[in-house]
Amino acid sequence: MESEQLFSRSYYRNSYNSITSASSDEELLDGAGVIMDFHTTEDDNLLDGDASPGSNYAMSNGGGVVSSSTHLLDLLEEPIPGVGTYDDFHTIDWVREKCKDRERHRKINSKKKESAWEFTKSLYDAWSGWLVVTLTGLASGALAGVIDIAADWMNDLKEGVCLSAMWFNHEQCCWGSNETTFAERDKCPQWNSWAELILGQAEGPGSYIMNYFMYTFWALSFAFLAVCLVKVFAPYACGSGIPEIKTILSGFIIRGYLGKWTLMIKTITLVLAVASGLSLGKEGPLVHVACCCGNIFSYLFPKYSKNEAKKREVLSAASAAGVSVAFGAPIGGVLFSLEEVSYYFPLKTLWRSFFAALVAAFVLRSINPFGNSRLVLFYVEYHTPWYLFELVPFILLGVFGGLWGAFFIRANIAWCRRRKSTRFGKYPVLEVITVAAITAIVAFPNPYTRQNTSELIKELFTDCGPLESSQLCQYRSQMNGTRAYSDVSSQPSTPGVYSAMWQLCLALIFKIVMTIFTFGLKVPSGLFIPSMLAYYHHDWFLFKEWCEVGADCITPGLYAMVGAAACLGGVTRMTVSLVVIVFELTGGLEYIVPLMAAVMTSKWVGDAFGREGIYEAHIRLNGYPFLDAKEEFTHTTLAREVMRPRRSDPPLAVLTQDDLTVEELQTIISETSYNGFPVIVSKESQRLVGFALRRDITIAIENARRKQEGIMLNSRVYFTQHAPTLPADSPRPLKLRSILDMSPFTVTDHTPMEIVVDIFRKLGLRQCLVTHNGRLLGIITKKDILRHMAQMANQDPESIMFN
Amino acid sequence: MESEQLFSRSYYRNSYNSITSASSDEELLDGAGVIMDFHTTEDDNLLDGDASPGSNYAMSNGGGVVSSSTHLLDLLEEPIPGVGTYDDFHTIDWVREKCKDRERHRKINSKKKESAWEFTKSLYDAWSGWLVVTLTGLASGALAGVIDIAADWMNDLKEGVCLSAMWFNHEQCCWGSNETTFAERDKCPQWNSWAELILGQAEGPGSYIMNYFMYTFWALSFAFLAVCLVKVFAPYACGSGIPEIKTILSGFIIRGYLGKWTLMIKTITLVLAVASGLSLGKEGPLVHVACCCGNIFSYLFPKYSKNEAKKREVLSAASAAGVSVAFGAPIGGVLFSLEEVSYYFPLKTLWRSFFAALVAAFVLRSINPFGNSRLVLFYVEYHTPWYLFELVPFILLGVFGGLWGAFFIRANIAWCRRRKSTRFGKYPVLEVITVAAITAIVAFPNPYTRQNTSELIKELFTDCGPLESSQLCQYRSQMNGTRAYSDVSSQPSTPGVYSAMWQLCLALIFKIVMTIFTFGLKVPSGLFIPSMLAYYHHDWFLFKEWCEVGADCITPGLYAMVGAAACLGGVTRMTVSLVVIVFELTGGLEYIVPLMAAVMTSKWVGDAFGREGIYEAHIRLNGYPFLDAKEEFTHTTLAREVMRPRRSDPPLAVLTQDDLTVEELQTIISETSYNGFPVIVSKESQRLVGFALRRDITIAIENARRKQEGIMLNSRVYFTQHAPTLPADSPRPLKLRSILDMSPFTVTDHTPMEIVVDIFRKLGLRQCLVTHNGRLLGIITKKDILRHMAQMANQDPESIMFN
Repeated sequence: MESEQLFSRSYYRNSYNSITSASSDEELLDGAGVIMDFHTTEDDNLLDGDASPGSNYAMSNGGGVVSSSTHLLDLLEEPIPGVGTYDDFHTIDWVREKCKDRERHRKINSKKKESAWEFTKSLYDAWSGWLVVTLTGLASGALAGVIDIAADWMNDLKEGVCLSAMWFNHEQCCWGSNETTFAERDKCPQWNSWAELILGQAEGPGSYIMNYFMYTFWALSFAFLAVCLVKVFAPYACGSGIPEIKTILSGFIIRGYLGKWTLMIKTITLVLAVASGLSLGKEGPLVHVACCCGNIFSYLFPKYSKNEAKKREVLSAASAAGVSVAFGAPIGGVLFSLEEVSYYFPLKTLWRSFFAALVAAFVLRSINPFGNSRLVLFYVEYHTPWYLFELVPFILLGVFGGLWGAFFIRANIAWCRRRKSTRFGKYPVLEVITVAAITAIVAFPNPYTRQNTSELIKELFTDCGPLESSQLCQYRSQMNGTRAYSDVSSQPSTPGVYSAMWQLCLALIFKIVMTIFTFGLKVPSGLFIPSMLAYYHHDWFLFKEWCEVGADCITPGLYAMVGAAACLGGVTRMTVSLVVIVFELTGGLEYIVPLMAAVMTSKWVGDAFGREGIYEAHIRLNGYPFLDAKEEFTHTTLAREVMRPRRSDPPLAVLTQDDLTVEELQTIISETSYNGFPVIVSKESQRLVGFALRRDITIAIENARRKQEGIMLNSRVYFTQHAPTLPADSPRPLKLRSILDMSPFTVTDHTPMEIVVDIFRKLGLRQCLVTHNGRLLGIITKKDILRHMAQMANQDPESIMFN
Repeated sequence: MESEQLFSRSYYRNSYNSITSASSDEELLDGAGVIMDFHTTEDDNLLDGDASPGSNYAMSNGGGVVSSSTHLLDLLEEPIPGVGTYDDFHTIDWVREKCKDRERHRKINSKKKESAWEFTKSLYDAWSGWLVVTLTGLASGALAGVIDIAADWMNDLKEGVCLSAMWFNHEQCCWGSNETTFAERDKCPQWNSWAELILGQAEGPGSYIMNYFMYTFWALSFAFLAVCLVKVFAPYACGSGIPEIKTILSGFIIRGYLGKWTLMIKTITLVLAVASGLSLGKEGPLVHVACCCGNIFSYLFPKYSKNEAKKREVLSAASAAGVSVAFGAPIGGVLFSLEEVSYYFPLKTLWRSFFAALVAAFVLRSINPFGNSRLVLFYVEYHTPWYLFELVPFILLGVFGGLWGAFFIRANIAWCRRRKSTRFGKYPVLEVITVAAITAIVAFPNPYTRQNTSELIKELFTDCGPLESSQLCQYRSQMNGTRAYSDVSSQPSTPGVYSAMWQLCLALIFKIVMTIFTFGLKVPSGLFIPSMLAYYHHDWFLFKEWCEVGADCITPGLYAMVGAAACLGGVTRMTVSLVVIVFELTGGLEYIVPLMAAVMTSKWVGDAFGREGIYEAHIRLNGYPFLDAKEEFTHTTLAREVMRPRRSDPPLAVLTQDDLTVEELQTIISETSYNGFPVIVSKESQRLVGFALRRDITIAIENARRKQEGIMLNSRVYFTQHAPTLPADSPRPLKLRSILDMSPFTVTDHTPMEIVVDIFRKLGLRQCLVTHNGRLLGIITKKDILRHMAQMANQDPESIMFN
């Protein structure tokens, strides 16, 4: 009795389904109660159906192939391997990834109490997030330390070598020597310049030329080695890496970009590139290196290796760790990750980034690469207050920084575009060597460009004290008895200062020009803008005259710092994170206000000339599919104007839920190149059921062919819960419900595009279906949106495509 | 010829519409081309229709009332006043607000070139965002300065009065005196304690009792005045305000919560409450005050006053300014706003918050309320490094902080619940006076509790130096010749230190107990937890023994700082922002690592006992509709299980697009209490057209009745672009398309609730419609979600309602 009732209910359900599919006249129920009734019926259907799918299915299938179809169903309920993964250069579906992760989490949680082993596994899973960021932090800190030490040593190798211990750099070499006096701590017998070694003489024009030659020779060798390594082993290791990491974090797949080869080659070539004296820095590359570490460690944990969204959380934390070690600024690193790099940044990631940055900074501090217990060479502290009238020059520095940023971005992008479009770009090795040669030849004569950029920044940032031996400090040299030209305090500037300022101005111009050509070369390179305008401040020495002579009323280092921040702000358009980085870099808590003023001004001025920062500009140059969260969409277009198919296009390729055969399905897939297909109730009603991905369909058909008997070309494919009623002699149908996304995102055709863009950004969608009064009209993908935005901005819509 | 063609096209359109409404058999076109054709038809229909709605309408209307119906349409195209505003205690629709703002922006931009006046207006509009945050920052800074000075003066009033200048506080009074020696700078003839004034004697038990009495008297008076002011003038001015501000920022409307009365009363009573010596701080209230300023200034700018979403951007910036002045930490304020308070935080708001915080800090610095050129009284700088082994006590401090936080939250919530549910809560004035009396009576004998909390923190944080007169520093008093018991450095602790430690422990216990009862009182009160555990550190004096005697190996102030951070972390569960605040507060750049370690530990330990911070706990206690972005939704329910109507409910109240009369519409509205109604094509097809809000419908009907002739109870209401064909004698129909939201958010019934919750959080929705295969099934509102989450957590679902 009960079984018969069950049968009739199942039968009803099945016939209900077949009626639904056969025609659109399925309104069996009418009047006010329709929603209620419909709801109840459907509810029964699904809840019962889910409880015992096999038996229901068998009963309603007309009694034909009961046992095997049960078996078939069981087979299909298992996840098909490969479903839910992504191809290279495709966009991930954040929502689906997050659902997958929650599902996995629930599975582990429900098993937890079964055995001690499962409990251990659940603990491991719960802690794996912290473990992976800890490992990433440790590795980033260690690598940063190694890079710092190696680059320092190789940089000094250009000038000479320590005979007593080859592995010592200049400073370490002389530090151990007891013949060194403090005043001339750079000179000691153990350290031999190349001229001394080869010609046997330390002075005279011959030795100068010898040193000059060896300097250039080493610089060229390093640059050549770097570019060859990159070209042969890991083409992804070139450049700053930040534009690509931004794109990857926004949900794009670039396989191998964060792999072990990239990591190895990037680490080695970064050392070479920095040592070669090219006008570049290690900040961007260190972020890339940290992200590689994060990616590699995430493979140890299935929670992260199998989920693209979760992996990106690790990468966000890794980029915070990268900035943390690059600038010695853990909090700034977290803010950088939040403001500049990350796309999806939940609060949990904030804490983990914080932790990763902390661990990395801690490791670097333990390695102590600079021997000053600080994370960076150019850590400084000021203690003099600043005065209100100084805000004027600070704001002027901001204006200058903004102008410089806008100019730099334009010039650099123009150069990179030229490189891409002309024959010139075909010879990257030659280009690198040319730039390295010019850099080395021009840099050597000027002491400010000859030294390492970090050392230069240190010298500029540091206040002049009695122990300072820099030429810039000679105007205060009356306190320093060892100076040649010592003068009285009423004459604040000496010829030494003037020549230093001249050299600095030349160095500034040189650095500006070279950086434009260097950023974008096929070697690891970061923006080392901080160095740039650092110099600018020296004109403000003039202010000195306003104060009482000899009093410490203006801190030149502060102007250097503010100038550096303004320039970096103009180039990258960062605000809060930049202020925090500079402020952590220099310990100048007092100076937040001037920093803020300069950085804000520089951003405003820069934005007036073009809203993109250098990273966004490079993303657009390379055509990555990146939907910027900062840019506002201000047009009035509606979803119907952006969706495909357009007026002149062929109709939208759709699948019907239960009347296609395998052959028809394969034809649709092979004739189109879309990544996914909406599934509808029937061609007549156009009512949307779900969305199926091309990759998943292909995998599922392959899999069914291999594993299930009786699946033929004329097998019926169905996406419904229950198989459609088929003639007795038809082959076994193929159920594809498991690959059907039954909760596709839909918007109506009247939805303004601004809302659609918002949804895409905030939820991280790949595609969205467009309906009108409940019927399917079309589809909008992320690329449609990017193309539409390019069109609206009067750019070539095809430039959006990744190339 | 052309006109006839137009007519026939219009006719086709109109008949198309009527077919759509009459039955669901509208599938006139079939086969593969259906989408394409449908799309084209609709497109024509709409684009032409929009271009000349009047004439099309007239022609298709059967030639009846051509001129008046054109007039009618014109009237309706104007925005109806009041549509798009919100009732009190309702949730805003972020998406709609943002669309409104973009629309306004476009209108201004398109007019810009018309005249110089319009151009000025557009400039004003573009800068109004910066203007309003500047004004907010200025006002917050100024108010914070006034509050600081006033509270300081009134606090000293409890102990005595400056006879030479009544308006001087104790320190200022003696500062000007030339009879003050540095060692006894607290004592000067100008400053008279109450005993001196009244009894004429400064020493002896009588004067002690007199001072005790006056202290208690003033404390009680201040508390009484504060509670009365709050009760009579601005009931919203009580409490910390942060839970409510979080709720408001998440999109809830509480009228008057940020109004001018609240601002005035909160400012006055905050001074009174702090001066009364209650165990509370001014941080939360300062955030509330700053938000009031932001809200009031936003009324000057139509861009912000007329848009609830934009107004919330100002409030986010204002809360950053509030924290900035409360702790003297501009960056920390921005992070606090980001991490703890804000809901929707675009990068633009980040910059503006940054700016507001900067301006506020700047103003406060200019006012210089503490005479130390710092933003807070307890600004300190340490310069001694810390050692790796010290991480152990720091982590222990974190554990302690977490435990304390969990305990505090439970105890405070239990007490507040008791207050709400029992008769006791009926007498707030009595309660405040009782607490104030107990506080004052217990506090006076102990010097650490007698003084202002900020002063106490300053004393605890500060390193002992030769100039320090605190009892705690007596063990180093050999450098300070004026001490009574001076001892040698080999004996690090003196009786003075021991008694100080005893007093501190008592003060700690006392503060712990009192804060539990104080937080939640009906006076302005903030959490002043930093003060709390600050004391704890003194047990770590024991560590001193490990180091060489006399060496400066452990900084007690550092322990105080870390302990304070850990406790505040345990109570509020903030991480990054808290570290940044403490670090800005104290200038201890070196100490980020210990701070991070302690704060992370305290958060973990606290979370083990309950995931909510104190603010979330209070939000839940008060039943505000707040959808927390931090809490993860981990259940497997589907949208169909959460949506209404449930199985046992009456069917969903829906409107059909063109066959209701005004009377029927009014009946539906009056019989239900829903805030909005889905509009469908027809009862039979259940295909969704849009969503109309109750408030908008009511306003539109009222408006039509008043302004349009011929609208009667049996007038047909239609939401379509064109009026339905009606019998010749029927009254004029009422078009409500302008109030119809044609892009309602929909999800399918199979959508997992975790995705739905995500959509609600990220897009800030009010409601979402649920469909199945293109038909409307039900609706999910924010309250449904909150109710469902409460149910899942085994809480009473009805506690979610605002009360």
